[in-house]
Amino acid sequence: MIQQPHFADRLLTAIDEKGSPVCVGLDPDLQKLPDAFRADDPMQQLALVGSWCEQILEIVAPYVPAVKPQIARFECLHGTEPFMGLSVYASVVRRAKEMGMLVIGDAKRGDIGSTASAYAQAHLTGEHAVDSLTVNGYFGADGLGSFVDICRREGRGLFVLVRTSNPSGADIQNFEGADGTFYQHMARQVDTLGSGEGLVGDCGFSCVGAVVGATCPAEARMLRQLMPRQIFLLPGYGAQGATAEDCAAGFRPDGTGAIVNASRSVIYAHLDDRYSGEGWKKAVESAAKNFAEDIASAVGAG
Amino acid sequence: MIQQPHFADRLLTAIDEKGSPVCVGLDPDLQKLPDAFRADDPMQQLALVGSWCEQILEIVAPYVPAVKPQIARFECLHGTEPFMGLSVYASVVRRAKEMGMLVIGDAKRGDIGSTASAYAQAHLTGEHAVDSLTVNGYFGADGLGSFVDICRREGRGLFVLVRTSNPSGADIQNFEGADGTFYQHMARQVDTLGSGEGLVGDCGFSCVGAVVGATCPAEARMLRQLMPRQIFLLPGYGAQGATAEDCAAGFRPDGTGAIVNASRSVIYAHLDDRYSGEGWKKAVESAAKNFAEDIASAVGAG
Repeated sequence: MIQQPHFADRLLTAIDEKGSPVCVGLDPDLQKLPDAFRADDPMQQLALVGSWCEQILEIVAPYVPAVKPQIARFECLHGTEPFMGLSVYASVVRRAKEMGMLVIGDAKRGDIGSTASAYAQAHLTGEHAVDSLTVNGYFGADGLGSFVDICRREGRGLFVLVRTSNPSGADIQNFEGADGTFYQHMARQVDTLGSGEGLVGDCGFSCVGAVVGATCPAEARMLRQLMPRQIFLLPGYGAQGATAEDCAAGFRPDGTGAIVNASRSVIYAHLDDRYSGEGWKKAVESAAKNFAEDIASAVGAG
Repeated sequence: MIQQPHFADRLLTAIDEKGSPVCVGLDPDLQKLPDAFRADDPMQQLALVGSWCEQILEIVAPYVPAVKPQIARFECLHGTEPFMGLSVYASVVRRAKEMGMLVIGDAKRGDIGSTASAYAQAHLTGEHAVDSLTVNGYFGADGLGSFVDICRREGRGLFVLVRTSNPSGADIQNFEGADGTFYQHMARQVDTLGSGEGLVGDCGFSCVGAVVGATCPAEARMLRQLMPRQIFLLPGYGAQGATAEDCAAGFRPDGTGAIVNASRSVIYAHLDDRYSGEGWKKAVESAAKNFAEDIASAVGAG
């Protein structure tokens, strides 16, 4: 395999090209797909999910530098055999890369070192490898180390969960210690881990990034100080309630250092009153375009 | 689907029947399989992994009430398509259940509520559903709640990561707060979550259990107090260094309340000097039998 450039350098270049630091999440939910993409036959349903994803990719490609397929939504799709939805996931990853987008695999995997190696091999190597993977740091440095080793070698990246966007995340992550909260402790671990040899790109950012909920802007602002070299993946815009201004808190003053994700508010825009008068494709395109412009304008990029 | 009995009741019954609270982990590692189970052709390799797992299941079935397939080791096995190893995983789950063993799916999944629902559907429903799943509680109660809902409805269980057995787990989990460590905080969350309506079985244990590394017996003893209703899944015996006496610290004085896992020390017993003179099957059988006896004797069960 030819060594590709550092993940952070690739991501920043892609953001520059598209003009906005945004990412669309691909979360196929059979309850919400347009009617034409639902079928009773499980294999036909799989094919329709694949076709819907491919069309979403085509629609959003002009506006977004990256997409984030949510693997759980594919893992639960069974054809004639369990887990056949993951072959659709692999196809979506390949197609997105062919269309020139970066792919963040939203898998939130994590385990002890030897097992993490298997996950890293599963998701960060081969033709269907994602450019970056979300991972869970509960096991600490030896668990994350196996992922980092492959990223260093193959020009790929990670986003480690630090502060999540969901309501009960605070019950766990805001646990108070003598030197700040638990999520700040995790942030320091990520900062240290991501500063290792060969992990920081020419752009000054590490291939080890962090997931920081856009729903908590004050915390994002503080985490920006604790993790100066991390690119933040900011979930929570749109359906989860964060505004573009909230998202801006996770960026550096120069408008770099983060990428905002929106899933439901874009891919299910046909269910949104603002867009529902149009066909589903036009609705998705309008939502993706507005999302990209909204974020670019708020962070001063593009 | 016919509602099956509560997971904790089923597990305790199975432990009684086999006479030892033990679980064998199935972690197929191509580097360590007996030579006869390695092939260059990827589809042939998949079939051989399936065959090896099936033979392991047959060998250990008389001694152990449960097995714990490590999904990462299947997820990284690709046939002609990525992730085809997961269909081997599904077959292993089905076969283990047919042989009368309970299956703990070691997947350590975790995400926000809506996404966790998809993982729960993927792993805890359908013919290939595991009896219990390891999960990561980083997202807090709303993330775990989606798993719990399905467990309540379908008589299945969870093991939430509390204190892991790997060396760097302490860097994260032993983070000190005003009221104890972070892992104690997580333990309290698990205790509360597992005490919900319909979650505690006739045996007095909850279907929401906890992963507690056997490599830290003092911590396991204290966690036993904080989580009186949790069944502990204790990894770390054997290859990771914990002894049967270390494991006993996670049990109640009456010898209930935990199940000890061993993976490499049993399934790769042919690589162990103590057993390597025999054929691989005999080595695995001896190791499984000794493991079950060692634990039963240390905890006073059986």
